[in-house]
Amino acid sequence: MSAGHSLTLRARFIDNALTRGVHMSQLTTADMEQLFEDVKNWGKWGADDERGALNYITPAKVAAAADLVRDGTVVSCALEFPTRPAPDNPFPAQHMMIVAGDACTATGVPGMEAAMDFIGVAFHGMAVSHIDALCHVFVNEKMYNGFDASDVKSTGATRNSIMAGKDGISSRGVLLDIPRLHGVDWLEIDQRISADELEAAEERQNVRVEEGDILLVATGRDARRNAKGSWSPAEGLAGLDASCVSWLHDRKVAALGSDGVSDAIPNRDAPRWPMPIHQCGIVAIGLHLLDNLRLDTLMAESAKRERWEFFFVVSPLRVARGTGSPVNPVAFF
Amino acid sequence: MSAGHSLTLRARFIDNALTRGVHMSQLTTADMEQLFEDVKNWGKWGADDERGALNYITPAKVAAAADLVRDGTVVSCALEFPTRPAPDNPFPAQHMMIVAGDACTATGVPGMEAAMDFIGVAFHGMAVSHIDALCHVFVNEKMYNGFDASDVKSTGATRNSIMAGKDGISSRGVLLDIPRLHGVDWLEIDQRISADELEAAEERQNVRVEEGDILLVATGRDARRNAKGSWSPAEGLAGLDASCVSWLHDRKVAALGSDGVSDAIPNRDAPRWPMPIHQCGIVAIGLHLLDNLRLDTLMAESAKRERWEFFFVVSPLRVARGTGSPVNPVAFF
Amino acid sequence: MSAGHSLTLRARFIDNALTRGVHMSQLTTADMEQLFEDVKNWGKWGADDERGALNYITPAKVAAAADLVRDGTVVSCALEFPTRPAPDNPFPAQHMMIVAGDACTATGVPGMEAAMDFIGVAFHGMAVSHIDALCHVFVNEKMYNGFDASDVKSTGATRNSIMAGKDGISSRGVLLDIPRLHGVDWLEIDQRISADELEAAEERQNVRVEEGDILLVATGRDARRNAKGSWSPAEGLAGLDASCVSWLHDRKVAALGSDGVSDAIPNRDAPRWPMPIHQCGIVAIGLHLLDNLRLDTLMAESAKRERWEFFFVVSPLRVARGTGSPVNPVAFF
Amino acid sequence: MSAGHSLTLRARFIDNALTRGVHMSQLTTADMEQLFEDVKNWGKWGADDERGALNYITPAKVAAAADLVRDGTVVSCALEFPTRPAPDNPFPAQHMMIVAGDACTATGVPGMEAAMDFIGVAFHGMAVSHIDALCHVFVNEKMYNGFDASDVKSTGATRNSIMAGKDGISSRGVLLDIPRLHGVDWLEIDQRISADELEAAEERQNVRVEEGDILLVATGRDARRNAKGSWSPAEGLAGLDASCVSWLHDRKVAALGSDGVSDAIPNRDAPRWPMPIHQCGIVAIGLHLLDNLRLDTLMAESAKRERWEFFFVVSPLRVARGTGSPVNPVAFF
Repeated sequence: MSAGHSLTLRARFIDNALTRGVHMSQLTTADMEQLFEDVKNWGKWGADDERGALNYITPAKVAAAADLVRDGTVVSCALEFPTRPAPDNPFPAQHMMIVAGDACTATGVPGMEAAMDFIGVAFHGMAVSHIDALCHVFVNEKMYNGFDASDVKSTGATRNSIMAGKDGISSRGVLLDIPRLHGVDWLEIDQRISADELEAAEERQNVRVEEGDILLVATGRDARRNAKGSWSPAEGLAGLDASCVSWLHDRKVAALGSDGVSDAIPNRDAPRWPMPIHQCGIVAIGLHLLDNLRLDTLMAESAKRERWEFFFVVSPLRVARGTGSPVNPVAFF
Repeated sequence: MSAGHSLTLRARFIDNALTRGVHMSQLTTADMEQLFEDVKNWGKWGADDERGALNYITPAKVAAAADLVRDGTVVSCALEFPTRPAPDNPFPAQHMMIVAGDACTATGVPGMEAAMDFIGVAFHGMAVSHIDALCHVFVNEKMYNGFDASDVKSTGATRNSIMAGKDGISSRGVLLDIPRLHGVDWLEIDQRISADELEAAEERQNVRVEEGDILLVATGRDARRNAKGSWSPAEGLAGLDASCVSWLHDRKVAALGSDGVSDAIPNRDAPRWPMPIHQCGIVAIGLHLLDNLRLDTLMAESAKRERWEFFFVVSPLRVARGTGSPVNPVAFF
Repeated sequence: MSAGHSLTLRARFIDNALTRGVHMSQLTTADMEQLFEDVKNWGKWGADDERGALNYITPAKVAAAADLVRDGTVVSCALEFPTRPAPDNPFPAQHMMIVAGDACTATGVPGMEAAMDFIGVAFHGMAVSHIDALCHVFVNEKMYNGFDASDVKSTGATRNSIMAGKDGISSRGVLLDIPRLHGVDWLEIDQRISADELEAAEERQNVRVEEGDILLVATGRDARRNAKGSWSPAEGLAGLDASCVSWLHDRKVAALGSDGVSDAIPNRDAPRWPMPIHQCGIVAIGLHLLDNLRLDTLMAESAKRERWEFFFVVSPLRVARGTGSPVNPVAFF
Repeated sequence: MSAGHSLTLRARFIDNALTRGVHMSQLTTADMEQLFEDVKNWGKWGADDERGALNYITPAKVAAAADLVRDGTVVSCALEFPTRPAPDNPFPAQHMMIVAGDACTATGVPGMEAAMDFIGVAFHGMAVSHIDALCHVFVNEKMYNGFDASDVKSTGATRNSIMAGKDGISSRGVLLDIPRLHGVDWLEIDQRISADELEAAEERQNVRVEEGDILLVATGRDARRNAKGSWSPAEGLAGLDASCVSWLHDRKVAALGSDGVSDAIPNRDAPRWPMPIHQCGIVAIGLHLLDNLRLDTLMAESAKRERWEFFFVVSPLRVARGTGSPVNPVAFF
């Protein structure tokens, strides 16, 4: 895809919005199909590539990112492991003790006293901070780089598993704080973020998203949850609209995270394209997504320093055929 | 505990070894009880402290550690998530698909096609790379900082949970490569590493373990497993002997990891002290342990550079009342 | 306890109800403590007994019950294994495939093609048909027959486990259909069933609950769920009130089941006695409870025959230290 | 298939055995394919049938079976839920407490004290007493009644699930005790049972397997396990050989159980037919199998009475799309 092509599509988005008087709301299926083709990185890094946009992260990029560490403050971007049912957590994670203090002396080894537990989680929910592997989403039963959906078997993913991130995913992290851009504590749950707003946030924050960056987009979900309690994302969840797809592609973002799930939910664009960021981002671009991050502390620490870049480290569990992993990403200032 | 006291105990170890003609093998129960008292950090960081030796890691330490990143090479120190039964894995971890490619179109959302999975693990095994929280081990039904074993309930740990590491555990990592010290590929499974060997490795490698470091001790377990297949640790597992306890304490190590479980197994020291590093390290010192790391790549990358220090990041899942977490620690050169 | 004593208490219930103008709603804590003492079977079958009222079921009783089988119709009394979240199912059960058809040929054995799955369940919920073992409930940290709550450890129940029913629980089943008694399809969710109503149902149905019977009390929950959808039992669940405790004891019922959880929820009786049937029934009487049965078909088949007795078989999984089991009880006409 | 055809095949078996001097060991692939065709019940009970040989159990059959109950003795035929690793249990079942006695007062409801647990199991192992649904095995990617393997999805079986047994499977049970036939405590692990031996056992025991019966074949596995410890079935497991397939078909057995897995392991017959009973029994005949039963008590109780028939009740959990269920079958004398 040429940059010109992308600009044309971008113009079409704007035109759609202007013409129809509705912000980004009536892209046609043909528009989405074109967008998908425009940002498709299939084959770009070889026919066998399973890393996608992670290829933008070079060792030099990592080294430069580590240089961003100044005062040594570390901020976790993960929610607590969500073991309690809630509107956004219909399938609670499991945390069960195998041995607690009451039986700690019964290890079978004289003198040895221990406690142990078990954790279990179907992590692709709406309350678990997790990473999506490139096998998590399909379009027309194809995955990133053209692999078939049938390569993801009932016994696990034989292509595009989370092992693409087996050595961790570390780079410069950049936070774009959209509530701050608008002077609010959180976005409304039906609010959709456009590429223009990402650029406006860049300008306001005096930072620019560059090749190989891990972009974090804050919607203020934590603040809203703290104030109003959790809600089902089926009611709505602020996120990026389809106009961001080309932008993410053009900026060569390596991975994308959000306190939501990156996509605005529900999407009101073209039928059969309910999650453009998941569908075009994961499948066409090859973009790993970080869903349900906790960003409130990161927003505060960034604002305090007026500094929106940091060293960012995500370290998925090495699940051989996994579709992702629960994670506890950390940002270093 | 005074430094002098510790030195006296160290002398006693040496004396024991010399007198009895057996390397560290016949410490009395009284010796061990004294050792436990000598290295006890209870109260040192306040009566409510649950972080223990992690307190040695200051923001300045983190910032200095990040400065160690030069070429941007990243090395994972985790084994693959162990879902297959093996002699060292009697309780295999679970990885099950919830939806695979064969049913990816049945998401209920037109156009949305996805695959999802579940992971579950009782991570305190011998084949999972994991971190031990300070509630994992007890001595006389007491935890680090004097909390009662009964504070670790069947519903989870109300004290000393893994939330002590909720923002990740990041510091300077130092690798001591004991097989390299001895010019072998791996230590025999009944081999025990003494404090003297740790110091010999420091000297040989021209590195010194300092306050707040995360120390990794390699025994060559990966190489042995690759060559001979996995084995049950009940047969033996190379690790540190009791002489290392004071050393770890004196050096103010923040956390300790190994490709084994830090302790030599079985221990032949005093009855009722089968795992001195776990018992004195976790409970008295307040030392988080990293068990079953994969260190072969780290050993190779360190040797290639003749550089045994790096920026080291461990990021446990934020399990509110957890006794630890599976992890994928990463080292940055 | 003498029968006279029980009658006295029963009279008190009635008196309470009459005096206060509220149906059974204001029993004092002292009343409940007395009731508990009155129906206490501790020691009745020996100091080590863990079977409680199951002792009422003799081989002769089983043989006589099997004689009730006439036409060979079998009716399951279990709900579907509840894997979907619902208001009454905040912790959905797990059903995950390990191998499905898409990978069925990859068994490692040429020619062998198979599919396999995993089930997991925290069965003491409100949507799983299950049996409660006598270790499931405590009063003042004591279990049935005086065992300590601390005998139920984080590693499992060392006393009063479900192994009391390891050979199945089979006897004459009797259904009391309370909605039918009142000419309705279901009881309202705040409706409480008294001992008098049980007797009225007996009279109406021309059946009498006898020693060693498994009593099933229908509230019409299935019909209500079908009509209105499932609801959280916290809103209310029809069930027996405290007046039934003595009655169950006096009748020497062997086990009790319901389409609810036997107890009316919430209970409005004495503070600290929120579930008299669970508390007095399980702990004092030694009564295994069958919760969340599906009784609609049984109600229909019974009504069709005007026959409220049948051979009833419950077969818990043999979980050595379990607090109960999911079950699929069957009734034979 | 005509009876004549089946007899022809049987003759061929015998001929094979005689000619080659090896007991049933060298059936060709063509023989097996013919056998499969000969016993195929596809379409017999309609194109949509998912019950297979369970159709042989009529209400009248159930009623007659219940008449077999005489003294009311009940015998469980299930092993304990196998939570410990063992040679025959590489994937141990899970039993974890959610709340034990130590936290029983913390239910959130004043006065309510409870303990609860979780069970999880991948039940198609070699140590779990379980039932195989008709979707458990495929031949050439077809299931019983011609359904495609692809109907068993990663989200569960849409055809031939265990719901075929949702109302329990109850009938006359008949035990054939093969060790008793041979005057031994157990069969050797490489011993294969032929149709002739089944008939010899019938004769010796003076019992005849009839239409709609649930046949249990004892190999003495429990006695051998008690004497020698458990072993991996990969070493060998006594069971039926391919000659039994026609016999089971001709006798119209409704379900088949064993203390092993019905099939002799390893099978030395035709390549690609490693488990003739599973492959022909489940797929062609439509036979539900009961694997890993515990039969020692049943053998003893039967022998004591010289009575090999009983009322037999199996009650699978109602897992909507399940490939089977752990069960605790009970026999009534």
